Amino acid sequence: MESDFPFLLIDLEQCNENINRMLLKAQASKTRLRPHFKTHQSAGIGKLFKAKGISSITVSSVPMASHFFKHGWEDITIAFPLNPLEAHSYNNLAQKGRLKLLASDLYAFKSLLSKIAEPIGLFIEIDNGYHRSGLEPHSPDILKIIELSRQNPLIQFEGFLSHEGNTYNATHSTQIRDIHLKAKENMLELKEKFIREFPALIISMGDTPSCSIMEGFEGIDEIRPGNFVFYDLMQLSIQACQYHEISMAMICPVVAVYPQRRQLIIHSGAVHLSKEHIRENEKNIYGKVAAFNGQKWGNMLEGFQVVSLSQEHGIIQWDENQTNPFKPGQFIAVLPVHACLAADLMKSFISIGGENMLI
Amino acid sequence: MESDFPFLLIDLEQCNENINRMLLKAQASKTRLRPHFKTHQSAGIGKLFKAKGISSITVSSVPMASHFFKHGWEDITIAFPLNPLEAHSYNNLAQKGRLKLLASDLYAFKSLLSKIAEPIGLFIEIDNGYHRSGLEPHSPDILKIIELSRQNPLIQFEGFLSHEGNTYNATHSTQIRDIHLKAKENMLELKEKFIREFPALIISMGDTPSCSIMEGFEGIDEIRPGNFVFYDLMQLSIQACQYHEISMAMICPVVAVYPQRRQLIIHSGAVHLSKEHIRENEKNIYGKVAAFNGQKWGNMLEGFQVVSLSQEHGIIQWDENQTNPFKPGQFIAVLPVHACLAADLMKSFISIGGENMLI
Repeated sequence: MESDFPFLLIDLEQCNENINRMLLKAQASKTRLRPHFKTHQSAGIGKLFKAKGISSITVSSVPMASHFFKHGWEDITIAFPLNPLEAHSYNNLAQKGRLKLLASDLYAFKSLLSKIAEPIGLFIEIDNGYHRSGLEPHSPDILKIIELSRQNPLIQFEGFLSHEGNTYNATHSTQIRDIHLKAKENMLELKEKFIREFPALIISMGDTPSCSIMEGFEGIDEIRPGNFVFYDLMQLSIQACQYHEISMAMICPVVAVYPQRRQLIIHSGAVHLSKEHIRENEKNIYGKVAAFNGQKWGNMLEGFQVVSLSQEHGIIQWDENQTNPFKPGQFIAVLPVHACLAADLMKSFISIGGENMLI
Repeated sequence: MESDFPFLLIDLEQCNENINRMLLKAQASKTRLRPHFKTHQSAGIGKLFKAKGISSITVSSVPMASHFFKHGWEDITIAFPLNPLEAHSYNNLAQKGRLKLLASDLYAFKSLLSKIAEPIGLFIEIDNGYHRSGLEPHSPDILKIIELSRQNPLIQFEGFLSHEGNTYNATHSTQIRDIHLKAKENMLELKEKFIREFPALIISMGDTPSCSIMEGFEGIDEIRPGNFVFYDLMQLSIQACQYHEISMAMICPVVAVYPQRRQLIIHSGAVHLSKEHIRENEKNIYGKVAAFNGQKWGNMLEGFQVVSLSQEHGIIQWDENQTNPFKPGQFIAVLPVHACLAADLMKSFISIGGENMLI
């Protein structure tokens, strides 16, 4: 495990435990786990899921869908509003496997409709209060999209899909539960309304915070969490995971130490960790810190925080009551705030044990 | 200029004007312009500088230095604290051209010293108040580093280097000027102190905000601005550039429109624009908006702002007194908050006129 540069270290054993836990919970509710692969974008991490019998996945872009069809996945939902400009790409992808798209806007759906030349599955995206994309549960456009898709033999109406991203604004797990249960109520109502006409329709839900804290998913046909395979500081800060469940750390060279201002400088900046941050005590935190023993990272060091990032530099501040054990030439582990963005930036991982994995 | 996906559009004419303006100002003060290439990381953009006779550049990492040595640059400063772990890489690079490093910490410098096997230029990095990396102007470690480098015939002491990144916290150009002038005073004092012993030593300064707003650089031997080739919203917000000087925009597909909440959803998220933001009226702004006519972007649309980014989604909010002209299937231009991070994420550009340029 030799590197001069910052690198992402992955604890594959912990990834497997995270997957197992989620899968067992889903199976107990007879809910399909369709994990979101935008988190890792990695064929190698994908194999961990395949080994457990998972065969359906979620992605958030055409290039990701193309990547995973190439790696043998056959059933992929692009959980991003369908883009009429991408009609040609959708038709190409639909020749490679079962492709499912999201109608999140009536006009966009109409614009795509005449360009569809291959069988495509269609979810209607529902906005249960996150207010990113999707139609409100009582929007008249829902019926219009269903009508239009019924008239097109290439389109199979799959059901309703939502993402409760507002769970990320929670400050406590009870808020996550409330958001999830309210959304589930809307989704079950929609299912009830259309199930007679479309007996195969499903409801698909599931952000990582909800899926992590709920004990079961009764009545939900499919969940699509992604981040749970790695977890990160943001999930920890909203009580969606525990520290030992975090399976990713950035291993960063220490390059300078300034004891007078209780700061050390690491090689790891916005191009490695991203500028995603959490707020604590009215300060932006870009990462927390653990020691690295050359093989794996240890417990979180209290009183050490990444307080600033520029393009390649990170600044770690230590509290007055701490002493700094780190010197230039050593490595330090930083727990990322947002694992998905760190993975997207780094494009590769090293596993504990030393296996190199590319995205 | 056909794409289904978000892409970075570059106005090369404006890049050239931005370079010209900076170069003329530097030449008038007999100051060397050693532009920072971390901004674009692109051999193609590099050619614009080379065409104007610029032959010395700045980068922020070993891979960037390696990239630009490969593309024919022969004099490169890595403006990042030297990392003793990278000794082997430095020795390799120093065989390819003139390499200059930064000593920002005495211990790190000592750790590297015995591993240096090729001729290397050395700057001492000075911290004039930004408090990222560097030694304070009166630090006793400065003399120690000079002593040690004098004893090593492979090390050529080049002088003092600083980066006044605290200019980015300015809210007005007068603050930028004050920070710059105070730092210059420190740097000239250091030069004065050591110039008799090292007649060739120089002082190297220059963040984009200072270099943009100062009328001249008298007494400064070298400036290293980078961002000025593109500029961006952050520079605009601190009055370091004017709108027409911004030479980069992200061209983004509109995928959904929600008139009730005056929001439209674009395909362009944190993996395209980065999570860098500016604050305006106590809100985070991740980009501003212009129309795109298929060839180039237009004036900034007042009352349209990117208010949220997730991995692939962006949310644009329009003010109550605006009407939204955009529909799914169209493109919209977003002016990035931080051009360097957008370029790093996208890895390629399209120029107005249609030339594809890779990093």
